[in-house]
Formats: sequence, C-alpha cells, structure tokens
Amino acid sequence: MSDVNNIINKAMDEKRKALYDHEAKDMLSLVGLPTTRYRVVKDREVAIEAAHEIGFPVALKIVSPHVLHKSDAGGVVLDIGDEDELIRCYDLIVDRVKEKVPEAEIHGVLVEEMASPSVEVIVGATRDPQFGPTVMFGVGGILTEIIKDVSFRVAPLGLDEATKMMGEIKSHRVLEGARGMPVVDKAVLADIIVKTSKLMLENPGINAIDLNPVIVYEAGAKIVDARIILGDEDDVERDVEPADDLDAVLNPSSVAVIGASSNPDKIGHQILKNIVDAGFSGPVYPVNPRGGEILGLKAYPSVMDAPGDVDSVVVVVPSRFVPGVMEECVRKGVKGAVIISSGFKDVGPEGAELERQVLETAARGGIRVVGPNCQGVSNPVSGFCATWPLISQVGDVAVISQSGSIALEVPSFLVDNHLGYSKSVALGNKSDVDEADLISWLGRDEGTRVIAVYTEGTDEGRKLMKAVRGASADKPVLILKGGKTEAGRKAVLAHTGSLAGSGEVFEAAVSQSGGFCVGSLEELLDAAKAFSMLPVPRGPNLLVVTSSGGAGILSSDASEKAGLNLRTLSRDTVDRLKAVLPDFCILRNPLDLTGNALTEPNMYGEALEVALESGEADMILVVFGDPIPDTVELLGKVVEKAEEKGVPVVVNYLGGADVQKVEVDALQRNGIPVYQTPERAITALGYLNRYRLNRNDLGGN
Amino acid sequence: MSDVNNIINKAMDEKRKALYDHEAKDMLSLVGLPTTRYRVVKDREVAIEAAHEIGFPVALKIVSPHVLHKSDAGGVVLDIGDEDELIRCYDLIVDRVKEKVPEAEIHGVLVEEMASPSVEVIVGATRDPQFGPTVMFGVGGILTEIIKDVSFRVAPLGLDEATKMMGEIKSHRVLEGARGMPVVDKAVLADIIVKTSKLMLENPGINAIDLNPVIVYEAGAKIVDARIILGDEDDVERDVEPADDLDAVLNPSSVAVIGASSNPDKIGHQILKNIVDAGFSGPVYPVNPRGGEILGLKAYPSVMDAPGDVDSVVVVVPSRFVPGVMEECVRKGVKGAVIISSGFKDVGPEGAELERQVLETAARGGIRVVGPNCQGVSNPVSGFCATWPLISQVGDVAVISQSGSIALEVPSFLVDNHLGYSKSVALGNKSDVDEADLISWLGRDEGTRVIAVYTEGTDEGRKLMKAVRGASADKPVLILKGGKTEAGRKAVLAHTGSLAGSGEVFEAAVSQSGGFCVGSLEELLDAAKAFSMLPVPRGPNLLVVTSSGGAGILSSDASEKAGLNLRTLSRDTVDRLKAVLPDFCILRNPLDLTGNALTEPNMYGEALEVALESGEADMILVVFGDPIPDTVELLGKVVEKAEEKGVPVVVNYLGGADVQKVEVDALQRNGIPVYQTPERAITALGYLNRYRLNRNDLGGN
Repeated sequence: MSDVNNIINKAMDEKRKALYDHEAKDMLSLVGLPTTRYRVVKDREVAIEAAHEIGFPVALKIVSPHVLHKSDAGGVVLDIGDEDELIRCYDLIVDRVKEKVPEAEIHGVLVEEMASPSVEVIVGATRDPQFGPTVMFGVGGILTEIIKDVSFRVAPLGLDEATKMMGEIKSHRVLEGARGMPVVDKAVLADIIVKTSKLMLENPGINAIDLNPVIVYEAGAKIVDARIILGDEDDVERDVEPADDLDAVLNPSSVAVIGASSNPDKIGHQILKNIVDAGFSGPVYPVNPRGGEILGLKAYPSVMDAPGDVDSVVVVVPSRFVPGVMEECVRKGVKGAVIISSGFKDVGPEGAELERQVLETAARGGIRVVGPNCQGVSNPVSGFCATWPLISQVGDVAVISQSGSIALEVPSFLVDNHLGYSKSVALGNKSDVDEADLISWLGRDEGTRVIAVYTEGTDEGRKLMKAVRGASADKPVLILKGGKTEAGRKAVLAHTGSLAGSGEVFEAAVSQSGGFCVGSLEELLDAAKAFSMLPVPRGPNLLVVTSSGGAGILSSDASEKAGLNLRTLSRDTVDRLKAVLPDFCILRNPLDLTGNALTEPNMYGEALEVALESGEADMILVVFGDPIPDTVELLGKVVEKAEEKGVPVVVNYLGGADVQKVEVDALQRNGIPVYQTPERAITALGYLNRYRLNRNDLGGN
Repeated sequence: MSDVNNIINKAMDEKRKALYDHEAKDMLSLVGLPTTRYRVVKDREVAIEAAHEIGFPVALKIVSPHVLHKSDAGGVVLDIGDEDELIRCYDLIVDRVKEKVPEAEIHGVLVEEMASPSVEVIVGATRDPQFGPTVMFGVGGILTEIIKDVSFRVAPLGLDEATKMMGEIKSHRVLEGARGMPVVDKAVLADIIVKTSKLMLENPGINAIDLNPVIVYEAGAKIVDARIILGDEDDVERDVEPADDLDAVLNPSSVAVIGASSNPDKIGHQILKNIVDAGFSGPVYPVNPRGGEILGLKAYPSVMDAPGDVDSVVVVVPSRFVPGVMEECVRKGVKGAVIISSGFKDVGPEGAELERQVLETAARGGIRVVGPNCQGVSNPVSGFCATWPLISQVGDVAVISQSGSIALEVPSFLVDNHLGYSKSVALGNKSDVDEADLISWLGRDEGTRVIAVYTEGTDEGRKLMKAVRGASADKPVLILKGGKTEAGRKAVLAHTGSLAGSGEVFEAAVSQSGGFCVGSLEELLDAAKAFSMLPVPRGPNLLVVTSSGGAGILSSDASEKAGLNLRTLSRDTVDRLKAVLPDFCILRNPLDLTGNALTEPNMYGEALEVALESGEADMILVVFGDPIPDTVELLGKVVEKAEEKGVPVVVNYLGGADVQKVEVDALQRNGIPVYQTPERAITALGYLNRYRLNRNDLGGN
C-alpha cells in the first residue's frame, strides 16, 4: 500500500487534484486491477519501441499537469495502426498541444493498448456526505448518463453484494449475452468493484474514482480509462455504535411533566392527561411553578421538589427555560428527557445555540434526549403516552418518525385495522437520540415485531446501517424516506435543517443492511400491518382464490411487480380441486370460483383446504368479489391451519357495499388482514416475501 | 402510389415475405422519405462508377432472394474507403456468399452511402391485433431492445402527435444535445414518423416496417437500414361507430325481470327487490312460469303476457332457456336486455354457440344486449338498479366494468366518501354492448361528469378510440386495464376469452384519444372521486399548506412524480403571508404552519385567503397533521371562494386519531375531498391537471 501512498503524496505535493492517467493505472495495477497496457515515453523512438512491446493498435495521450482536457487540446489520438502512423501522430499531438496550451509543460506521451471492443461498463466510487465511501456500477454511455440506470453500495462490500449490483440495473441483460455481445465475466467485474471500494476505504486522500469504460469480455476485463480525483477524507464517522441506554426515554419507571398545566387547551395539560389516562404504571409528577394540584395530582414548583426519583421528564416549557430545567434534571439524577418545546434549531441560529446548551448539560448528566421540537414518545404497554392525541391500543408495531404527524398516523391506522403499536417516537430536531439508536433498541425489544420509520435523512449513515443490520435479523425494518426528489429535498432543508442524502445511496445503504425502503406512506402502513398480522412465508409462491375474475387479473398484474410467483397448480392439485369444486370453477391460478361463490360460499373453504394440503401455496390472497356474508366462519378454520403451516393469508373484499363493511371489520377483528384493493394486498405480501429472502441472506432465524 | 404498389406486387409475385433493401429504399424515396443514396450494380466496373457517384466511403451488400441474413453469409462490408478496397471487397462478398450459400442466385450488389455518425433512432410500424397500424419511436440500440424505452401511437397521427412521441421516451435528452451530440432535427423525424404511418395505412400488403437505424443530424436525417415485411392486411375494423341506441338498457321506461323468484336467496329475487327498493319510475313485471305474486307484484308466465309495453328485460333464467326467452322478447318488441345468466362463452364452445343464437335473435329484433354472464346494470337516477347489492346513491360518476365486482366497488367506494354514481354497467361476456358503446353514450349523458372503466382489452380498438375521443372533450375517461403483465394476460385468457392487446399500445391509443390509463384500482377510485368533487384547475401550480413538515415533504416528492409544479411563492405573497401569520411559520411552498396550528388553527384560513388572492395557486392541498377539530368551519369559506375561482382544494388528514375520523367524515359530507395520504391526494390532483392539458389539446371547453 505504501506505493499507492507514494503516488497520492507525489500528486498532492505537486498540488494536483487528480492523478495522471499513468499514475491512476499504476495504482490500479498495484491493487491487482486489470488495465490496458501502457508506457509513458519522452521521445518518438521510445514510443515506437513501446508500441511494439504493447502491440498495435495503440493510443497516444499527452502527459502534462497543465492540460486538463486532453482531447480538447488535441492531445489524444486513438487507434494508431502502424509505425508510420505513430510517428506522424506523435509529432501531431505534441505540436497541437503546444499550439493550443502554449504554457503547458509536456512531461511525456502515454502509449496505450487499444482494448478490443466488447461490453462497456462503468465502475465508480465517491464519498457520500452521509455514508462515506460508496461504489457505483452501471452500463456505459447513455444508460448511465441519461437513464441513470446504475446501482450503488456503501463500502465495504463483498463479492456477493457486488454481483447483486449487476443484477439490479435495468439493463442487466446487456451483461448476459444480449444483442450478439458475449456473456460477460461477472466474477472479474465483481472483483473490480470490491477492489475499487477497498481503494477508497483505505486511502483517505482519494475523493473519487471513475473507471470508464471498463471493457468486459467472456473472460477478463480491461480498465481503459481511469480518473482518480484527490481530496480530503470525508468526515463520516465509521465506528459510532447505536446507543443502548434508552430505557429511560422509552420505558421510564417514573416521570415528571415539566410545564404541566391545568388549562385543557394546553399541550402541557393534554400530555399529563394522556399519561394518566393511559394508566402509567409508575409515579407521575406534574411540575408547575404555581404548584397546586393538576388532574388530581400534586404539582411541584421544580422537578427537584418531586418526593421520589424521577427517571424521565417530559418538557413542555418555552425554549428559553429549557437550559435551566435541564440543569435541575441533572441535579435530580434524571436519565431521560422528551423535549416537546420548539424554538431551538428549528427557528435559526439563536435557537441552535440554545439547543447546544441543553445538549451539553444533558450529556454531562448522562441524560438521553428525544427532541426538542417533537410530538413526544408513547409506550402504550406501560402507559407512558407522552404525546397527543392519546392512542393507547397495545400492539407489536414500533414507530419512529421525524414527523410527529406520521408518528401518530401509523398507530391511528393500525387501530382502525384492529391492531396496536408497541412504541411510537417522534424525533423532532433529533438533537441526541436518532433513528439508529431507536432501531437498535427496538430490535431488542420483545414487544416489537416490526419497526416502521419515517426519516428525512441522516448525518450518521454508518450508524444507521449498523442499527438496521442488527435489528433486521430478528424483525423487519421499514423505512419511508422523505425528500427523495429535488422538490422534496428543498422542503427537507426548510423543515429541519437536516441533510437529505442522495436518495439512491440511502436506499442502497438500507437495503444492503437488510432493511426496506418503502415507496409511500401507504406502503409503510400496509406493510407494517402485514408484518404485524402474518407469518413470513416459506417461499415465493402466491395462490389467488377469487370470486371476481377482474380482481384475479389485477392480482396477476400486481404479483409480477411485487416479485411473487403465481405458480401453476400441479396436475394432482387440479384433480383434487376438480373433485371438490363445481364444474364452472376455473381451476388455474388465480383460482376463479366465479360469481357463483355468492350462493355457494363454501367453495372457498374447500378450495383453500386443498391448496394448503398441496403445499403449493406459500402465500394466499382470498378475494371476495361479491357481497358474501359470514366470511369469518368461511375462513376461520382454514386460516388457523394456514397459520400452523406458516402460510400468510390476506383478504381483498370488493363490490360488497354494506355487507363488505361488516365483513371487513369482522375479518380484521379476527386477525385476518383485509386490503382495499388486490394491488395493495399483493404489494404487502411482496414485502413479506422480500423479508424472507433478506433473512436467508442475513442468516437470521 | 401505384409505384409503391408495383414494388409490393412484384415481391408478392415472387413469393417473397420481405422487400429487398433497395426496393425498400425505393419505396421510402417514393413517399418522400430520406434514405442514404444507393445503386444496385451487376459488376465491379459499374460498382466503381456508382461509388464515385455516391461518394466514398460506401458499403456493399449482396442482393439475393436466397440470402436472408446477409451479414452471417458474409454478404456485407461497411466503410469502404477507396477504389482499391472496393474492388477487393466486391469479389470478397460475392465469393463468400457463393461459398456459404451455394444455392443462392445473386441478383447484384448494392452500393450504399455510409452516413456520417450522429444520433441513431428507430422508427417502426406494425399491425396491432386490436388497433391495426401502429407506429413506434425509440432511440437505437440497448435503449430500445433491452430497456424498451419506446413510445407508440395508433395511425394515423399528425406532426404534433409524432413530436410528442419523442418527448415521451425516458431518454429524450439524447435528442436534445446530450453527451456532445447535436440537438437533432425533430421536424424531419416527425415527418418520417407520419409518413411511415401513412405507408402502413395506405398499403394493406405491408405488415411491418423497421427503419433502424435512422441517423439524425442537426438538420436532416438519413434512413440507413429499412426492413419492410409483407403480409396480409389486418382485420381491424376502421369505421365502426359506437352505438347510440342504449337508452333501453341504461334508462328503460318499463322493465320485466325474467326469472324473478320469491326465494330471497335467489339472484332473481334480489334484482327484482333492488329495482323495487330503488323506486324504479316505470312499470315492473316479474316473469315466472308459476305466475302468482312476487314482492307484491303480479308475476307473468311469459314476458309476452305483460299487460303493457316492455322496454327492457333483465334475464336471470338458466342459459339453455335464454334463446327461447329472447324469441319472446323480439315478439314483445323489447329494446334492451341485460342478461345476468352465465353458461355461455364463459363455459366453452357449447355455451359460445348458445350465445351466438341469442345474439342473432336479439339483432333480428333490434334488441341491445348487456352481458351475458354479468352482474347487471344500475341507474340510481331512475331506480333501475338491476344488480346486487343495492347501492342507490345518485352521483355523477359512471362506471363501466368487465368485472362485476369492480362495477360495484366503485359506487361502494364513492358512497363511503359521501358521493354517488350516475350509471354502473357490468359487461360480462360483452357479446354486444361494449365499453366503446357505453363511453360514447355516457359522454352525452348530462348526469355523468366522469367515466370510470375497467376493461381487460378490446377487439375493436378503433371504435374504442372514437368513443374515448368523443367523450373526452366534455368529461374525463379513466381506464383501468387488467392484464398488463405476462402473468395478468394469462389470467385474462382464462377469464373471458377476450384478447388483451399489448399494454403499451392500448395505453398509447387511450392517451392519444384524450383518455387516461390509470395505474391501479385505487388510482381509478381516487381520480374518479377528484373529478366528481372538484373543478379542473387552470394551471399546473400546486400550493401545499400543512401543519406537518413531514407530510409537506412527502407532498413535494409526490408532486414531482405527478407532474405538478410546487411554484415558489412571489416576494409579494410571502410579505402578505408574513403580515398575517406568526413568525414560526415557514413561508415557502409547502407552507408549513408547524404543529402550532393545533392551538392556532385560524392560520389555515388566513394563509389560504392570501394564497387564493395571489392567484399563484392553481390547486391547493391542505394537510391537517394534528388532531385539529372543526375543520369544516376553518375551510368552508375558503373552499367556497376557491370554487368560484376554479381552484380545486383537497385535504389530507394525518395523525389525528378519533378527531380525524370525525373531521374526515364532516369534510367529505361538505363536499371537500379527503385523501388518506399526501401521495394519494397529489396523484389525484395530477389527473385533474392532466385533464386540463388534454382538454387544451382537444380544444374542448
């Protein structure tokens, strides 16, 4: 590696921002990467010798620290076929450069092998402001530059992951023998990607690498052009571990509400009331300078006056009082603070200074802070519902959200579906506790089965990846990232001052850590519901049983998009279905019971029994496309059997008007998830299936 | 044109399936299309003469009816630079072809101009099985073949439409000066597309055209390779007009239910009951061989026994009785029949024969038929609710669906949103009346403001296009097409035996007729709701007013996708907002009132007043991201003012738990549409905006 360092240091000493072509190739060769052959020469005679050594045809390129755009300065000639041409071209490029850039010192001429044509790809690497060293792979030309058909990974990565990058681009068929091109050597490409990522990781002085084109053959590859840009090391922290001391903010043993109010219109009243109404299991101390009694509880002028220990505080006083409050909390031995108050970083530099003070004090006392400028924390299990409005149904979905509204919308949606949640945290300004800390803590929380996150980005990308990777082996982590598009990013900057990283890199980072970036708020809700109610399937095969042909077709369309397999039923299964179902049924997948299911609804049970017995369905979508009553009775037993077999069953109910309303409610009350359209049902099943695949990769249970 | 015919006839006489290169180019020249220059020669000397005439470099290609793949047979050499090379190559290709394809008669050698390199595109044309002559445009190479980045139009089309095709491909930047390439001559490309479409339209003997590549320059273009395939004319009817005599099936003056039953479990009972319960305005005659009385109405043994005229019949008897029933209907002078009964084409060839008989009889009597194998027709305005379950709320959304479940799901959804529908028709086997007939009729129906369609394809593409074009000037036509993907198409074939055309061509045909193909059932529902409740905006500018920063960001992300413009507020508007709003508000777009809106909800009214006055918002999304009560009072006046100005206002309510449920209900009851997520709200607004654009194009009101 010291040779690599020498190259970097030499260029830096010469105050260059980039390596010369030959230096870049020297460096690539040093780390074992395949480049075209080359030699730097100082005169025509040696150039001829070099060309013979390399083998015609060759390219000539000027070497000068003062010529940035070699082609524009006439300093490049490609495809030189013989000695005569070489001599003519050698003089030509030297003369042209002297003419166009008279001040340029010419250090020599690069004689380079012309690689024979084949599939051209690009391998690149940059330092992402949130995630640090990141590699990119794409197919050359228009596809990369205009269609942006590329895939990313945060470094380091292994050969497996590098191979996956190739499969992810839309044009992956270009690598697989399309259009008369060879099936390319993916192993050597994977090796190039991995070594490029190492080069970035191990050399802080390299700012970006651009291998473009890399020509790939049936066996082997050649890096034709390499641009290596120098610069300062990124400041992305690589070794920050997610916090593990969040018990006081998520599950405190006692709590004081600082800024508790007897005025029902004030947040300081509503939060205290919600904690009381939710039946918080420990002592609750209202804190209000006027003392007295609020909601039947004795109020104290200061947190220090509370008669017992205070594990956590919820702070609702105006921002200017918060630094003082925090000092008192340190003295009292408080361990967690949820700061609702706004007026910090969210209002500009003065507020940011106030926030810094509060954080400094809290850190001194070992107090973990959620917020400020947030809509609080809620733990319905212990009744620590320090937020508003009160939603107290216990379930197993944990919510982490930079937005208070979304932190509450997820529980709200779940309750409408007869579910509940385990924890909900609104992050607000995210001054201390962040998504990564919470994902990590919730990953170990037994009451949590799925973690749903809304975030607008992170400054600590590596910590987030560690947290997602840690949690994902046990439970799915679903992330909705706000600020993906240009318009969205502008709104992010206005909202919280946090930096939204490039959407593509964020998504790659989450996915390579085993998590999921969902496409919309609805997908977050629908997928969370599926994970909460259903087992993870054992395979990709979906069976659709429907009374509506139309819904069956929409299901087929959607299942292809969701990566599910509408497996053709075996001959044996078709025969067994034939034995129990009337003739008018269409014995395929989707299995169409036809509108006759309205008068013969028992067909559902018969069909599903056979399907479950067959083992050919890893997942089942049941569509009621008619006003069929008593569906819980129809499905109850089958769903029980499906659960035993680990087969998730979801329902879509359509066209049933009033009957539908009653049935949807009854089904969900009985733990059978219903989605409003076939497409939504299947998108949700798609997430279950992807988690199965991820868990296989992660080697989890 | 007779010269074009001569070329086709000559090739057909020689039993060829394709034109020779030079014939194809002759034909293109005849219709005024620019090709590379060329000459067919029989010996070397003339080849030299031709090459000098054309100008070096040239290409040589063998001309032989027996060599299909010229390159494989060694019959092509490109880029020949001078006379010497030409002589060598001439002998070379002749020798190679003789060696590889000894039996080949060689008719000559084509000497062709080598076009200088520039942007390469593809123009193609085929005969689509549903729509007939169809043109395609794409950028050459991988983008077309692997990414399938192409756009389609059904012929004929004008220059405007051809120019739009270029803008629709993802890689359109390739045409606009990307990567050092020229800004290409779009006018000449549009001309090539239009003339190619004409060539197909006017020459039934041409089956497909493939101009690949066409090299386009800053000025002009050259068609380098042209493949013209011959074959039979397509059998797509071009001149079928949609029917206009559907009054009897959609809005009859009197009705008989043939197969009416007194058993409440039978469909024949439910339909009769629904017609009665919906308060059908004319006479209703139950028909049942046992006579007697059903639901208090006298039943008749045959439709012929009905004491008055029978305008329409609903048929629920087993399929084998339907031909006889139809004979009686003809004798009775019935004008419309809704056949619910299944057991026709849906069960195989025997049923198909039965269906043919029924249709023949109906046609003889001038009876229009909906179905068979359908879930009926419903017109809540006149109480002709010949379907089940009964949904009788009157509104202005018309539904046409090949699937009964979806025909009922749309009204069901609308009613949940305090809306209703004008007509609902389930098409079933679609033996007579189809989507096109209905779209056309509903286009003229005053009670219908938006037409929502579910279809699995059409055999009469041109008729559908006429109907969509006719209706779209007055009202939006939204189409959900089932069977888009491979998996989906298989299910379609099983379901109704109808042919699903290529999804891309279908979508292009609908869109060029002014209609919309929606992406999912949810989009169909959401867009129908928006069109029913809101005015069409006057411009693309969206203002988001929110109390949730997170929802604001999700809105920004979604608005980019939906093609809406989050216009930056003018200095003046910001100043006026500053005058009425507290300091903590973030005066941008999205306009963030922050969580303080919970305690100061009047900010919404203040902000919206200013926004409406400014004229800078063509559409408004209001987000309540907190449990804010009394939203109808907050918004009522502003929404009224917005309506006057033609500004649609939609609401997204988030994180409000029980308050939210009450408010969503109240808002929608008061005609203000609420969507469950910001993304869904904006997708719906996107359709309104696209309709504005379409209507401009169509020159409608």
